[in-house]
Amino acid sequence: MTPTASSEQPHVVIVGAGFAGLNAAFAFEDQPVRVTLIDQWNHHLFQPLLYQVATAMLSPADIASPIRSIVRKQRNVTVLMSEVKGVDVHNRLVKMDGHELHYDYLILATGTQTSYFGHGEWEPLAPGLKSMADALEIRRRVFRAFEAAEMEDDPQKRSALLNFVVVGGGPTGVEMAGALAEIARFTLKRDFRHFDPTATDVYLIDAMPRLLTAFPEKLAQTAQKDLEILGVHVVLDTMVSAIEDGVVVLPDRRLEAGTIVWAAGVTARPLVTGDDIEIVGQSRIVVDRCLNIPAHPEIYVAGDLGATPGKDGKPLPGLAPVAIQEGTTAAENILRRIQGEAQVPFQYRDRGSMATIGRNRAVGVIGPLRLHGLIAWIAWAIIHVFMLIGFRNRMVVMVQWIWAYATRQRSARLIIGGNTDR
Amino acid sequence: MTPTASSEQPHVVIVGAGFAGLNAAFAFEDQPVRVTLIDQWNHHLFQPLLYQVATAMLSPADIASPIRSIVRKQRNVTVLMSEVKGVDVHNRLVKMDGHELHYDYLILATGTQTSYFGHGEWEPLAPGLKSMADALEIRRRVFRAFEAAEMEDDPQKRSALLNFVVVGGGPTGVEMAGALAEIARFTLKRDFRHFDPTATDVYLIDAMPRLLTAFPEKLAQTAQKDLEILGVHVVLDTMVSAIEDGVVVLPDRRLEAGTIVWAAGVTARPLVTGDDIEIVGQSRIVVDRCLNIPAHPEIYVAGDLGATPGKDGKPLPGLAPVAIQEGTTAAENILRRIQGEAQVPFQYRDRGSMATIGRNRAVGVIGPLRLHGLIAWIAWAIIHVFMLIGFRNRMVVMVQWIWAYATRQRSARLIIGGNTDR
Repeated sequence: MTPTASSEQPHVVIVGAGFAGLNAAFAFEDQPVRVTLIDQWNHHLFQPLLYQVATAMLSPADIASPIRSIVRKQRNVTVLMSEVKGVDVHNRLVKMDGHELHYDYLILATGTQTSYFGHGEWEPLAPGLKSMADALEIRRRVFRAFEAAEMEDDPQKRSALLNFVVVGGGPTGVEMAGALAEIARFTLKRDFRHFDPTATDVYLIDAMPRLLTAFPEKLAQTAQKDLEILGVHVVLDTMVSAIEDGVVVLPDRRLEAGTIVWAAGVTARPLVTGDDIEIVGQSRIVVDRCLNIPAHPEIYVAGDLGATPGKDGKPLPGLAPVAIQEGTTAAENILRRIQGEAQVPFQYRDRGSMATIGRNRAVGVIGPLRLHGLIAWIAWAIIHVFMLIGFRNRMVVMVQWIWAYATRQRSARLIIGGNTDR
Repeated sequence: MTPTASSEQPHVVIVGAGFAGLNAAFAFEDQPVRVTLIDQWNHHLFQPLLYQVATAMLSPADIASPIRSIVRKQRNVTVLMSEVKGVDVHNRLVKMDGHELHYDYLILATGTQTSYFGHGEWEPLAPGLKSMADALEIRRRVFRAFEAAEMEDDPQKRSALLNFVVVGGGPTGVEMAGALAEIARFTLKRDFRHFDPTATDVYLIDAMPRLLTAFPEKLAQTAQKDLEILGVHVVLDTMVSAIEDGVVVLPDRRLEAGTIVWAAGVTARPLVTGDDIEIVGQSRIVVDRCLNIPAHPEIYVAGDLGATPGKDGKPLPGLAPVAIQEGTTAAENILRRIQGEAQVPFQYRDRGSMATIGRNRAVGVIGPLRLHGLIAWIAWAIIHVFMLIGFRNRMVVMVQWIWAYATRQRSARLIIGGNTDR
């Protein structure tokens, strides 16, 4: 794995090709560094639309691009598909299966994964929504539940199959619950002969007294009302006590569910450890304002993995815009150091956040604006289409959305894979 | 699973929703029968384009539609997703896991699956290309081989990873080999830093002295020449002695291969057995000219599963047009019998056949025409787009093809699933 560019140039290793890692790589274009970009998958994932794959609106390829084709023209970037197992911070080595790679500078951008708060045994029963494999597993379970209901003679068992429970009332949970309700009420309305899909029950459960805690209270109320209009049962102030096979245990009742989706929490997996490395909530790595680890200034952390202090001193939230901006700043600071210049502290330019609930319904904060309803939904669609990487993806996603809008159909309702399992 | 239409009407069960089964269901529209259409998957697969999913040109959803959405408006059709385990011909029962279903008339249309000629142990080493799961597995192996080559330091091991072997020189094998050569020579040309993808070797092996035995000899020669221009090594008159992990054993040598695709044979799985049921080559069920089993005239066989005598007395080939026409005729004959009319014998209208080799290259027989080169390729593209079910699929497939034609890129280069396995 000899790097192709001049080996006298400093070697920067970027771990993770999400929003942070990819934007770091972009910032090194035509710069005097050798870059190795490592990811466990071969594709960059446009995570904000992942729930649309899980709910059969889009195909996997619509929101994923091969990493090496994205950076094809940057001849100083080598892409490796490999899982990084750990980092030897003293010898500056990134460790993979059977390989290790020396770095001069390291950017860690591995993001977060689903957290079950110490209950890893819930994972197979209630998949999260972080990777493409997760999205396809949820899609499979959702549509298999409807198929199983058509085969089921026992009305009680059938009704259990048609209960969908989403745990976690953040943007992912809200978007999943809204999409599931739309599938039952519109997409599948006339597709079954032995039951009425509109009788499906979708539950959205959160431990907090309100949904979307990162949004202004009023918008969260609008989102809740919109979900309830779609028929979603919003259950607040309610902590899940346990997940069993096909059952969500709440303090006051047992909720049977054919499909359970876990969107209640995330945790990072810090690849570096040591007494001099501070790990805070969600296992995020504490960095200074220039995005490097204080004790190891050659190691930068960008995106969800890092706990970067914001204006108020609290860590910035795990959002795509934060990751994009941090990736760029981390790379620029490395270039500044190579050129003997002073680093600049990271400054987050907050452009807002959005969540979509269903056709014609979304909520959003864009700068000073508070949007909801149709206008928020249109803004959401435009912003997300333009953030997608690649001309073709954009065009195909637009075609699919327009088609879905006109027909209320979903194009990717495929069940692929094991036939006998749930 | 009570049928919804009047239960005094005859009950027709169709097993398999491929070209034959689906077209049989279409023929029952607004007719006085209750129809149950059973398939092990929830989607109808447009099999002629399956190799394009295996080679990352199209997404699964582009060539697959949910069966129940296709027949949504036929209120007398119930769709069940279930695997049929067998048929009790005496009691007229279709047997599924935990369910059985009585029929008055039965149409068997389960098609064929990959045959390893008694060497089932080769299957995990050399997947076939019959289901969507197969196509995704091949796609995964192809792109993982290139990724593994980028990680590999040993030149000999790397070169083995970059050997692709396709066994079987029928249309599927020819199309796979052509597409693999194009991926290496064009799609991935600039994507790697440690090797040159154009140095990839693609082998197409067949036991016969020529490719495409169902085509006129001259067209087969053109196809071979076209493949060789793309850099495919065509190895004829050569029987594969064995498949081992990463090795295709030929009589005179051992061919190392990072990816092996098996397109050498198919076999049916007759769901009915008995002394009075004749099974011929490839386990196909012998039917009379009206498409029913002579000893069980209430059972019809349509598509690849049936051995229907053609004009020359030999069984008709396993082609999509045969299946489409047989499905329709089987259903029409059932309706004729219900109405007390005489059945009509099946007459195959041969509209020709085609195989595509790569960009601008195809061969085809359409009626009296023998086509090759660009014109055959354009005809192939038009025919296949128009045969696709659903307005949206057509539009999305056209967008993808035009984009791919303009850029030589492939949109669905995703590796999803197990990370550590081959």
